[in-house]
Amino acid sequence: MTTGVWLIGARGNVATTAMIGARAIAREATVTDGMVTERAPLTDLDLPAVGSLVFGGHDIQAGSVVETAERLHERNGVPDRDTLDAVRDDLATIDDRIVTGTARNCGRTVAELTDDAAFDDETLSLREIVERIRADYAAFQENEDLDRVVVVNVASAEPMPADPDQYDSVGAIEAGLDADDPLPASALYAYAAIDDGHPFVNFTPNAANALGGIRELADRENVPHMGRDGKTGETLLKSALAPMFAGRNLRVLSWEGHNILGNRDGEVLEDDANKAGKLQSKGGVLDEILEYDTHNRVRIDYTPALGDWKTAWDDIRFQGFLGTQMKLQFTWEGSDSALAAPLVLDLVRLLAHADEQGEGGLQPHLASFFKDPLGVDEHDLSRQFDRLYEYADQHRNTSTANEETENTP
Amino acid sequence: MTTGVWLIGARGNVATTAMIGARAIAREATVTDGMVTERAPLTDLDLPAVGSLVFGGHDIQAGSVVETAERLHERNGVPDRDTLDAVRDDLATIDDRIVTGTARNCGRTVAELTDDAAFDDETLSLREIVERIRADYAAFQENEDLDRVVVVNVASAEPMPADPDQYDSVGAIEAGLDADDPLPASALYAYAAIDDGHPFVNFTPNAANALGGIRELADRENVPHMGRDGKTGETLLKSALAPMFAGRNLRVLSWEGHNILGNRDGEVLEDDANKAGKLQSKGGVLDEILEYDTHNRVRIDYTPALGDWKTAWDDIRFQGFLGTQMKLQFTWEGSDSALAAPLVLDLVRLLAHADEQGEGGLQPHLASFFKDPLGVDEHDLSRQFDRLYEYADQHRNTSTANEETENTP
Amino acid sequence: MTTGVWLIGARGNVATTAMIGARAIAREATVTDGMVTERAPLTDLDLPAVGSLVFGGHDIQAGSVVETAERLHERNGVPDRDTLDAVRDDLATIDDRIVTGTARNCGRTVAELTDDAAFDDETLSLREIVERIRADYAAFQENEDLDRVVVVNVASAEPMPADPDQYDSVGAIEAGLDADDPLPASALYAYAAIDDGHPFVNFTPNAANALGGIRELADRENVPHMGRDGKTGETLLKSALAPMFAGRNLRVLSWEGHNILGNRDGEVLEDDANKAGKLQSKGGVLDEILEYDTHNRVRIDYTPALGDWKTAWDDIRFQGFLGTQMKLQFTWEGSDSALAAPLVLDLVRLLAHADEQGEGGLQPHLASFFKDPLGVDEHDLSRQFDRLYEYADQHRNTSTANEETENTP
Amino acid sequence: MTTGVWLIGARGNVATTAMIGARAIAREATVTDGMVTERAPLTDLDLPAVGSLVFGGHDIQAGSVVETAERLHERNGVPDRDTLDAVRDDLATIDDRIVTGTARNCGRTVAELTDDAAFDDETLSLREIVERIRADYAAFQENEDLDRVVVVNVASAEPMPADPDQYDSVGAIEAGLDADDPLPASALYAYAAIDDGHPFVNFTPNAANALGGIRELADRENVPHMGRDGKTGETLLKSALAPMFAGRNLRVLSWEGHNILGNRDGEVLEDDANKAGKLQSKGGVLDEILEYDTHNRVRIDYTPALGDWKTAWDDIRFQGFLGTQMKLQFTWEGSDSALAAPLVLDLVRLLAHADEQGEGGLQPHLASFFKDPLGVDEHDLSRQFDRLYEYADQHRNTSTANEETENTP
Repeated sequence: MTTGVWLIGARGNVATTAMIGARAIAREATVTDGMVTERAPLTDLDLPAVGSLVFGGHDIQAGSVVETAERLHERNGVPDRDTLDAVRDDLATIDDRIVTGTARNCGRTVAELTDDAAFDDETLSLREIVERIRADYAAFQENEDLDRVVVVNVASAEPMPADPDQYDSVGAIEAGLDADDPLPASALYAYAAIDDGHPFVNFTPNAANALGGIRELADRENVPHMGRDGKTGETLLKSALAPMFAGRNLRVLSWEGHNILGNRDGEVLEDDANKAGKLQSKGGVLDEILEYDTHNRVRIDYTPALGDWKTAWDDIRFQGFLGTQMKLQFTWEGSDSALAAPLVLDLVRLLAHADEQGEGGLQPHLASFFKDPLGVDEHDLSRQFDRLYEYADQHRNTSTANEETENTP
Repeated sequence: MTTGVWLIGARGNVATTAMIGARAIAREATVTDGMVTERAPLTDLDLPAVGSLVFGGHDIQAGSVVETAERLHERNGVPDRDTLDAVRDDLATIDDRIVTGTARNCGRTVAELTDDAAFDDETLSLREIVERIRADYAAFQENEDLDRVVVVNVASAEPMPADPDQYDSVGAIEAGLDADDPLPASALYAYAAIDDGHPFVNFTPNAANALGGIRELADRENVPHMGRDGKTGETLLKSALAPMFAGRNLRVLSWEGHNILGNRDGEVLEDDANKAGKLQSKGGVLDEILEYDTHNRVRIDYTPALGDWKTAWDDIRFQGFLGTQMKLQFTWEGSDSALAAPLVLDLVRLLAHADEQGEGGLQPHLASFFKDPLGVDEHDLSRQFDRLYEYADQHRNTSTANEETENTP
Repeated sequence: MTTGVWLIGARGNVATTAMIGARAIAREATVTDGMVTERAPLTDLDLPAVGSLVFGGHDIQAGSVVETAERLHERNGVPDRDTLDAVRDDLATIDDRIVTGTARNCGRTVAELTDDAAFDDETLSLREIVERIRADYAAFQENEDLDRVVVVNVASAEPMPADPDQYDSVGAIEAGLDADDPLPASALYAYAAIDDGHPFVNFTPNAANALGGIRELADRENVPHMGRDGKTGETLLKSALAPMFAGRNLRVLSWEGHNILGNRDGEVLEDDANKAGKLQSKGGVLDEILEYDTHNRVRIDYTPALGDWKTAWDDIRFQGFLGTQMKLQFTWEGSDSALAAPLVLDLVRLLAHADEQGEGGLQPHLASFFKDPLGVDEHDLSRQFDRLYEYADQHRNTSTANEETENTP
Repeated sequence: MTTGVWLIGARGNVATTAMIGARAIAREATVTDGMVTERAPLTDLDLPAVGSLVFGGHDIQAGSVVETAERLHERNGVPDRDTLDAVRDDLATIDDRIVTGTARNCGRTVAELTDDAAFDDETLSLREIVERIRADYAAFQENEDLDRVVVVNVASAEPMPADPDQYDSVGAIEAGLDADDPLPASALYAYAAIDDGHPFVNFTPNAANALGGIRELADRENVPHMGRDGKTGETLLKSALAPMFAGRNLRVLSWEGHNILGNRDGEVLEDDANKAGKLQSKGGVLDEILEYDTHNRVRIDYTPALGDWKTAWDDIRFQGFLGTQMKLQFTWEGSDSALAAPLVLDLVRLLAHADEQGEGGLQPHLASFFKDPLGVDEHDLSRQFDRLYEYADQHRNTSTANEETENTP
C-alpha cells in the first residue's frame, strides 16, 4: 500500500518542512521528535511508514521547494545545513510534481503575493477549476502508482465566505459552484478531494470542510476528513492551561494574547479580512473549557525580524479565594513550521489508517490536532489525547510486523 | 453531623486564610472562587457545609489568628479590610481553641522562629508528646461537641528524617516512639490523629503520613488520610503543561524553575535542611509524566519584599521536529495562602465525606490536590481531575437536599 | 508665597492620587518615594513645600474626589485604607473648589463618558468658554489668596485637531477662537492659563501647548510651561534602554510594545481617534535615540480586570556581532496613577520655581518628565536627568532655610 | 604600525568568536554590528583597522580554534556556515600561533576540564611560569613582526586568591612570586604582560590587574590596562535601568537575577569557588547607582541545553508614591560570545590607541565595557558612554585619512 500526500500550498513553509522531515527521516538524517505517531501508544497502529510517503501538490507562487528550504535554512536555521543537504535531491524530485493551483476568492493580499504568471485562472468558472484540481489529483495518483492520495490544505488564511451557513448541504455547494458564487479556493480543493474519495485534512482556518455541505459529502462518500486549523502554539497552551483554571475554580477575568510572527502567514494576516477567520478558529477554546465568557482578546502582528519564528505572549488574570486577583504570563517561542510540519505527517498517516479501515466522515479522535476540531466540543487537551489513545488501543496492530514499504520521496 | 477542623500551624498564613475564608463564606461576605468543592460536579456530593466547620489547632508561636489576619491584610492586601472586619470576632473565638504544639525535630531554623515561652517540651519523651496531642484532639472534640475531627497539617517544612524507609511498619514507628528516635513533629501529629481515628491531611512536604508505618496504621484503623504537599503553584503548572509536551512528543531538554517568596515559608526554606524535603516532593512530577529524566532544577529563594506572594519563573527548552530547539517561559504570581487555603477546606470536606462512607486509607481520587500524591503515580492534572469527577459521579448525593448544619466558627 | 494647583480633570485618577499624596505628605502619613524633587540634588532648590500646595480644578464628570479616592482604594489598593482615612477631610475641602469644565471637541468617547448634567456648554462660543475658564482660575486665586496658580492638564486623551500646524502663531489661535474652529478643550485651557500668566503643564498627549501659537504666547507673556504626556511607563523604559542598544552598536530590528490597562484612560483609548495622539507622542523616542528607523509598534488595549494598573510587555529583537539576532523582553507592572501623580507635584513645584525666577517659555530641563518634551530633541533619560541636575546646581538655594509656608489642603 | 592580539584562552568561545569576526570583517563577509568603535564618534579615532589585527594566544586545552568555531556553528548557529567558510583558513593560520598556557591555582574544576597533555607545569615555580609566558609574548611579537602586542585575558573564572589586599604593591606581588604563593594564573599573565610593556585587558572577573601591585606596576611602567569582567548582559542592563529608578526616586526593594547558561563558563561557575569572584564583580553596580543597599541576589546556573546562549531573568520590585509596590521583570537572551567578542576587539583597538598616545595606567574612559571598572565609581551606563565620547572628542583624528595597514590574520 503506497500513500501519496497532496499538499495545497506545497512550496510554503509548513509543506516544505514536512517534506524535508519526511525525507530526512527516510534517510535517517534526523530525529522524529514532534511527531505524535512516533510515540506510544500510536506506534502500535499499522500506519504507512513516514519514509514511504510520496509527495506532490499545488501552489500559486513560482519558485521551488528547494528554494523555500534554502530560505528556511538561511533565515531561521531550520533545517540545518546537513539535513538540507541530505534531502536536497529528494526535494528536487518532488518539485517536478508540483503544479499551479488556484487563489480564487482568497482576498486581495493573497492575490498580491501570488505570482502573476501562475495566477492565470481568472477566466475559468468554478466548475472548470474544480475539474482541473480533480485532474491534478488523479494524475498524481496514476503517475506515482499510488494506492491512496491524502490531500492536505496548508495554504495561507483566506477571508471567510459571507454567511457560510448557506452552504450547509451538498446541494447548496453544488448550486454555488454552478452559479460561480464567491466560494474560496479551500472549498474547491476540499470538494474535489472528497468527491473523488481522497481523505482530506484542513490544517488552515479556511472554510473548506468546515462547510456543512462538504461534511455531508464526506459522510455520503464515506471519506475520512478532519480539521480545522492546526493547534501548534498559543491555542495549544490554552487547551492545556484552561482546564487547570476551570478544575481549580479559579475564575479567569481576562486572557490577553499577543502573537508576533514574521513569515508569510504573518504578512497575510495583516489583512483584517484574512485575520478574521483565524481569530474565529482560535476563539472557542476558552469559552468551552471555562463554561463562561471571559475577556479574551487575541492580537496577531507581523514582525519581519522574527522570520518563521512565532512569539506568543499571554497575560491571564484570575480571581481566587477571597476574591484575590492573581496572574499567569507566558511567552512561547517556536518555529511555526517545525511545530506544524510533524502534525501534517501524523494526520496523513492517521487519515490513511482510517481510510484503510473504512472509517469515513469526521475523525473526532483527531481533535487534539486542531484549534477548532470539527464536530467536537471537547477542548481539554488531555482529554483530547485520551480519545486518541483510546483509538490506538482499539486498533492496536495485531499483525506480525509493521512492515515498511518502499522508501520513496 | 458537625465537623471539626484541627489545624497544625493554626496561626500560620494558610490556616488563618482558610479560617477567614470559611467564616466569610458563612457570613456571605466573600466568593467561593478557588474552592474545588464549590464547583460542579463536586457540588453533587453531600459534604459538610463550609459555614458549619468548627476550627481549632496547634501552633508553636505566640500571637493570635487575629494578629496574623491583620498582618496578612496590611502586608498583602488579602484579606481586604471589609472581609477582615466581617470575621474578626469569629477569629477571636477560634483563637481560644488554639493550644501550644510541638516543634520537636523540626530543625534549627524552625526552632529559632519558635516563640520561647511556647516551646517548653524539650524534656518530654515522644510518647509524652503524643499523649498531649491526643488529649488536645479529644478535648476539642468534646468541648465543641463534634461528630468528627479532621486534622490538617499546614505547618512549615521540616527536615526529612534520615532513612525514612526504616519507619515502614507500625511496629517500627512505635519502636521509634519508644526509643525517642529523631521523628519529626509531623509524624507525631499524624500518628496521634490516625491512631485515634481522626481523618488526616498532610498539606506539607513533611514526613507525617508519607511514612509507611503511618499508612499501615491508617489501613488497619480504616482512617481516611491523604497527602502530601499542596499543589498550588509551579508544580500545578507542571502537571498541566508537561502532558502537553509528552503528548506532542516534544522532548523537554531542560526545565528551570526559580521561585521567590517572602513569607515565613520562604524564610524556613532558606535552611537547606528544610528545603530538601520540599524539593523532593516537587521533583517527581516531570519524570513521571515525561517518562524520561530531564534537566530539572528548582530554586527557591527568600525575597522579603514579596510578603505572602510568590513568583515562579520557569524556563522550558524543548526539542521538536528536525531537532529544532524551542522554548516556553512563564511567570506565575499568586498569593500563596489564597491558593492554598481553599484546598484545605476542600480536603477537609472530602475527607469528612470519605470517613462518613467508611472509606479508610489513602484517597487516590484526591491526587490533584498534592505535589506528591501518596500512593498515586498519575501526575497529569487533567487525569487527576477526572478521577475526582468519577468519585463525585459514583457518590452523587441522592438525598433530597444538601442541608447545612448550624453555622458556627 | 502660596502656590495653588489647578487640575484639569480634577476628579480623575491622576489628579486624585496627586492630591491624596500631597495631603498625606502634609500629614506625615506617607513616604515621598516617587517624587523627583524629594531627592538630591533637587532638594537643594527653594521649592514650595508639598504640604503647602492648595488644590482646585475643573472636571466634566459628576462625583467627587472622595468618591474617586474610595474607588481607587477598593479597586486598586492604592491608596491604602489608613492613608485614605488620613486625608478624607482634606479631599472633601478640595471638592468644594472643583467646578464644571468643558469637553468641547474631545471626541465621541469622552462625550459619552461625560456626565450629562455637567456638559451644558454646547451653546457657548469658544470665546465664552475661554472667558469662563479664565474666571474660574481667577476666582480660585482670589478665594484662596494665592500668590501663584499653576495649571496642570491631566484630562483624558483627545483627538488631535486636523492640521495642527495651522495654529502656529498667536494670531492663528485667536482667529480660530473667533471662528469657533474645532479647537479641543486642552487648547482652551492652555490659552486661558498662559494669557493670564499662569504657569502651565500639559501632562497629556493633547494639543494644548504643543500648538505653536500657544508657545508663542508663552514666550511673549514670559510664562513658564512644559509638556507633553507624562513619561511614566513603557516610554520611560525606552528612554533608559534605547541608549544602551545605541551605545553598544546593537541594531534594533524590532521593538513591539503591548500595553494593557483597565482604567478610564484605557477606555478612552479604545477609540482610535483618541489613541492616535497618544501613539504619536510615544513614537519619537526610539527613532531619535537610535538614529535610524526601526520596526516600532505600540499596542494599547483596554482590559478592565487591571483597574488602574498597567502592564506593558515589550519584545525587542536586535542584531549584534556576526549578525547574531538576540532579544530582550520586559514586563512592567505599575499603578498608572501612582507613577504619574508624584511627577505632577514635581512639575508644579519646578514651574513655580521657574516662574519665581522669571524664567518664561518652555523649560527644557524638565524634558525627563515627558514622552514628547516640547522643544527638546534629547530623549536619552540619563542625559535628560543630567540637564535637570545642572539646573539644580545652578539654582542651588543659598538662603538659610527652605521654610515651609502654612500647611493647607 | 601593526598590532598583535594575544588572547589568554585563545581556543575558548569568546576568543574564537572575536577572531572569526575580525577575519570576517577583513574579508567583508560580515557586519560590524556590536562593535562600539565602529560607530560615531569612536570612528573619529585613529585606531588600528580591525582587519589588520594579528592574533595568537595561550590555552590550556587541546583542540584548535577551527574546532571551536565548528562547534560554535553547530551548537549555537553563530557563526553561520558562510562566515565560517570565509575564515576557516585564517583560523588555521592563527592556530599555529597558539601555545600551551598555565592553569596554576585556577581551582579544581578548571583543572578537571584541562587537557592532561597540555597541563605539564606542576613542577615549575611561579617565576619559571612567568618567564615562559614572557617568552611566548616576545616570540609572537618577533615572529609576526609586530609593533605592539595587546594581551587580553578571556579565560574562565578562577577562584579569588585569599586576602587579595596582601598584593597591594609591586613588592608584595614579587615576593609572592618568589615564595610560590597561590597566585592564580591571571596574575601571572598580567604581571608578565605589564612588566614587559604590553597593554593588558582583563575581560574576566579574575584577580589579574585588579590586584593593587599589578596596578602599581602599570603606573610605574606607564602601560595602559583596564578591567575587569566584560559587561555583556544582566549587569549591562542593571547599569542602564538602575539610573532610571534612582532618578525617579523609585525605591528598589529587591532585585533578583537568575542567569542560566550552557557553555564552559557555566560549567566552571557550577564550582562555588569560581563563582564567588563572578558574583563579586557583578555586585557593586546597584549599590553604587542606588546609593543604598537593596536585596540584590544573582543566581548563575548551568543548563547545558542553552549551549553558548545565556538567559537572564530579573525580577525587580520597587516602591513608589504612596508606598505602592510595583515591578519590572525582564528576560535577556543573548549569545554570550557574540556579545563579548566585539568588545574584545574594541578594547584592543582602544588600548593600542592609548599606548600610542603614551597614556599609561588605568583607562577610566573605558568603564562602560566592564562590570567592575577598575578605578571608576561611576556605574551609570549613559554617563560611562559620555566619558568615552568625550575621549573621542579630545582625540579626534586630524590626519587626512584613517589608513588601514596590511590585512593579515
